[in-house]
Amino acid sequence: MTRSWWGWGRTDRALADDECVELAALIPGLPGRPRAVPRLRDLEVPPSRLGPPSSLPLTTDPAVRAAHSYGKAYRDVVRALAGDLGGAPDAVAHPADEDDVVRLLDWAGTAGVVVVPFGGGSSVVGGVEYRGDRPWVSMDLTRLDRVLEIDRVSRAARIQGGALGPVLEEQLRPAGLTLRHFPQSFEFSTLGGWLATRAGGHYATLHTHIDDLVESMRVVTPAGVHESWRLPGSGAGPSPDRLFLGSEGTLGVVTEAWMRLQDRPRWKASASVTFPDMTTATTAVRAISQAGLHPANCRLLDAGEAALSGASTTGECVLVLGVESAAVPVAGRLAELTGLARDAGGSVAGDPVGGAVDAADAIDAAGAIDAAGAIDAAGAIDAAGAWRAAFLRMPYVRDGLARMSAIVETFETACTWDRVDELVATVQAEVGAAVGEVTGAPGLVNCRFTHVYPDGAAPYFTVITAGRPGSEVAMWDDVKTAASEVLGRLGATITHHHAVGRDHRPGYDRQRPEPFAAALRAVKATLDPAGILNPGVLIDPV
Amino acid sequence: MTRSWWGWGRTDRALADDECVELAALIPGLPGRPRAVPRLRDLEVPPSRLGPPSSLPLTTDPAVRAAHSYGKAYRDVVRALAGDLGGAPDAVAHPADEDDVVRLLDWAGTAGVVVVPFGGGSSVVGGVEYRGDRPWVSMDLTRLDRVLEIDRVSRAARIQGGALGPVLEEQLRPAGLTLRHFPQSFEFSTLGGWLATRAGGHYATLHTHIDDLVESMRVVTPAGVHESWRLPGSGAGPSPDRLFLGSEGTLGVVTEAWMRLQDRPRWKASASVTFPDMTTATTAVRAISQAGLHPANCRLLDAGEAALSGASTTGECVLVLGVESAAVPVAGRLAELTGLARDAGGSVAGDPVGGAVDAADAIDAAGAIDAAGAIDAAGAIDAAGAWRAAFLRMPYVRDGLARMSAIVETFETACTWDRVDELVATVQAEVGAAVGEVTGAPGLVNCRFTHVYPDGAAPYFTVITAGRPGSEVAMWDDVKTAASEVLGRLGATITHHHAVGRDHRPGYDRQRPEPFAAALRAVKATLDPAGILNPGVLIDPV
Repeated sequence: MTRSWWGWGRTDRALADDECVELAALIPGLPGRPRAVPRLRDLEVPPSRLGPPSSLPLTTDPAVRAAHSYGKAYRDVVRALAGDLGGAPDAVAHPADEDDVVRLLDWAGTAGVVVVPFGGGSSVVGGVEYRGDRPWVSMDLTRLDRVLEIDRVSRAARIQGGALGPVLEEQLRPAGLTLRHFPQSFEFSTLGGWLATRAGGHYATLHTHIDDLVESMRVVTPAGVHESWRLPGSGAGPSPDRLFLGSEGTLGVVTEAWMRLQDRPRWKASASVTFPDMTTATTAVRAISQAGLHPANCRLLDAGEAALSGASTTGECVLVLGVESAAVPVAGRLAELTGLARDAGGSVAGDPVGGAVDAADAIDAAGAIDAAGAIDAAGAIDAAGAWRAAFLRMPYVRDGLARMSAIVETFETACTWDRVDELVATVQAEVGAAVGEVTGAPGLVNCRFTHVYPDGAAPYFTVITAGRPGSEVAMWDDVKTAASEVLGRLGATITHHHAVGRDHRPGYDRQRPEPFAAALRAVKATLDPAGILNPGVLIDPV
Repeated sequence: MTRSWWGWGRTDRALADDECVELAALIPGLPGRPRAVPRLRDLEVPPSRLGPPSSLPLTTDPAVRAAHSYGKAYRDVVRALAGDLGGAPDAVAHPADEDDVVRLLDWAGTAGVVVVPFGGGSSVVGGVEYRGDRPWVSMDLTRLDRVLEIDRVSRAARIQGGALGPVLEEQLRPAGLTLRHFPQSFEFSTLGGWLATRAGGHYATLHTHIDDLVESMRVVTPAGVHESWRLPGSGAGPSPDRLFLGSEGTLGVVTEAWMRLQDRPRWKASASVTFPDMTTATTAVRAISQAGLHPANCRLLDAGEAALSGASTTGECVLVLGVESAAVPVAGRLAELTGLARDAGGSVAGDPVGGAVDAADAIDAAGAIDAAGAIDAAGAIDAAGAWRAAFLRMPYVRDGLARMSAIVETFETACTWDRVDELVATVQAEVGAAVGEVTGAPGLVNCRFTHVYPDGAAPYFTVITAGRPGSEVAMWDDVKTAASEVLGRLGATITHHHAVGRDHRPGYDRQRPEPFAAALRAVKATLDPAGILNPGVLIDPV
């Protein structure tokens, strides 16, 4: 496959021009034809300021540098489409092994060159670019892509940090095991990136973040290599790994981790439940989240989101429930879950689907689409299936709409149940108002819950509206500022699983307790004394 | 109740002299009568070196200082019985609120006085004493004992750090909620202590440590008050709370936390399964731990442990399984678990017991014994019941045997499944050999699994042998050194849930990655620049 240099994912999945026009017809006020995608060779990539030592795996090739300029947020795509590559890295490093990583950091520390770790490059928070004035290198880690060791007894594997989702799953498959971490970016993100950003994955409840799947980590810091012991649990001091989980490339480069694996599911079942309104649905999801039944999927779509994805067009909210197990049948568990949903005012739509997954490998094997398809349950064509297909297509749709000058972006958060109703209503009202103010027209602010907890939920919002050609990034930034303000005011986290990067810094600074900020600055000064690692992310550059 | 100043728990539960003699008859080589418990008024408590400002809640009363000299490890009990109070604190502080904590830390920082936070004082790792030369204050936090706020919707409560287990449960009961954290020390330990030491609790699987029950924390550090936001989940940078969880009083004093609560169980069921040997039993427990069924109890006793507790006297290993739920009946879940155990070679002993807990409050309400009784399941008299009673009585038995110069102590660890068989066998062989070498006679080295994970287990060892009067502490220290050496050599953690304190420092230093140690020292210097907080624990005093 060929990765898009300007947009999400694979070039062969990008929307054709007529598809862009067709989709844009649903949003009033957009131009009649898509902006052309610039040819990379026509664009100006600023000259590299580096003459790196020839013994290091560095390239200054302009096309490679261009493809490492940004992550894949809406604002990144728009900037790339506009041909703005002024912030391209001076060089891109492709370390082949951990020694290369050590040598590169040593060189950069001495030379005062900034290093930004780059996994799959799918950051949507400005986590893989650099906004300062120093020469900088994007360190692409995808050559560190091997599963080095599998412990079948403990169901764990030692995996290199640069392995993309499908690459590591392919190597685990012969052992009958899976990491089962399927973020939307699964094809285009790496283990190290997931760990560095505390990525959210397959499980809607219980083990929602990659954090919970970690046994131990190996991290190259400028001050030395950190390697924790492989342990199933420990109470020996503060968890060493938890300091690096979420450190977003500011403290070191994740070169390896021992990860907890799962047997491939043998039974799956899913059901869709509809609710007349979001408040009723939220009460039902809360009851489910507090029942200790731990569904693998528990995804609530509000009416707008259900309509957008094709899960329901009748103005109802849709809850998609999924259960899976490698050990025991799950029909009974699903019945318990739908029973709770029904008790709380839901209508179970049709019969539950599922059963023994005789063709589990067929479901999971065919590549990223199908691996991500496992997010839900057995492959019946129902609301879950419709939503799943839309979920994977959404970033490509966003890119197509961006070419039409639409504004299409998401943001996500989490808060405790006592505040969920107010949060969702307030965000939709205030962000909707901000959209109106910025664009002069109403827009969509849809909501879904991606993950739920006994004590709260993670609402995820999608904004769709018409932008003005040339002003889209500024307009979105204004909307985003309004969104971050309301989240902070209501005590909801600035990010549940998209990470902080550069875009969430103001919200993160507001949320982070000051003694912890001081502690983090002290850690940074200790592990990265030259301040070369991803400066501007999490903490201010020194 | 009256707390014992020298031994575990309540004075009215201590063994009478004739009970001590009766128990000691089972261990060859002990004296014929127990050492007398010294009267506190006959002992010399060194004069206080402090003349504290009268505005602070400090006392220099010798009896109060004596009772805050040690934790409750075997070596603490023996030292107290020997009348050794040379290390008593110069004063004991009893802050009534957070302001008092702030003022005490300010004063201590200025005066260069060491402060050791003290919750219930049940540390078994030397975590609440001080072994240096500076004047020191034991800060007893049990006046901060209130549940300040309950959020019924999110099932969470804001609780002060000094609340003992029964004290906080009593305040949660009217809301129908429970923290459901029942360490063996439940009656004699506090929320703040649990958080500071990453205590292990009720659940044998899944949420094994208090860490998982935390929504947010409020910690007074010498550099300011840390307060994290109440969130059900977040991906915003490294988790702030995880830095303070396990910090063991070295970075700050936990004054409050928002804790996740449970509904009181409505259904419980339990079963006992026997196995011919530990290897077969371990395989079964591994299968159970990897099935995603999350039993509340999954406690494996080896033959020696089963015999000692009265759970079985036929030389078999005993697995106690327990399931509970507030939402759905659990008989089916228990049947799935016993089915897995049977498939792996176990014999299910008798009929499972359990059902709807009509009298759940009766089971849980009557005080600590019954609250801890909830560790297993409904109150049938079976192997689980026998073991449970022994579990709660064990510390008192230890104290009685200590008066007979027996050596009775435990240590615990965790490792991945691939190493569990080797670890258990090697520990039993090498620690058994060390016992023989030190005492000249064989002793018991029993093993149980207290908590299990999909990727490993937490073996817990009990050592019982005859000591020589006057040399017990030195003898135990030699055995413990051998135990720590084998754990470290096999890559098993120095502590799964007893914490590091002072006694586990060498093992912890070996286990902790050096970059993380450097980070922790930097954090310490930032948050506790005068180095007054619990110096010697986790990191060296500055």
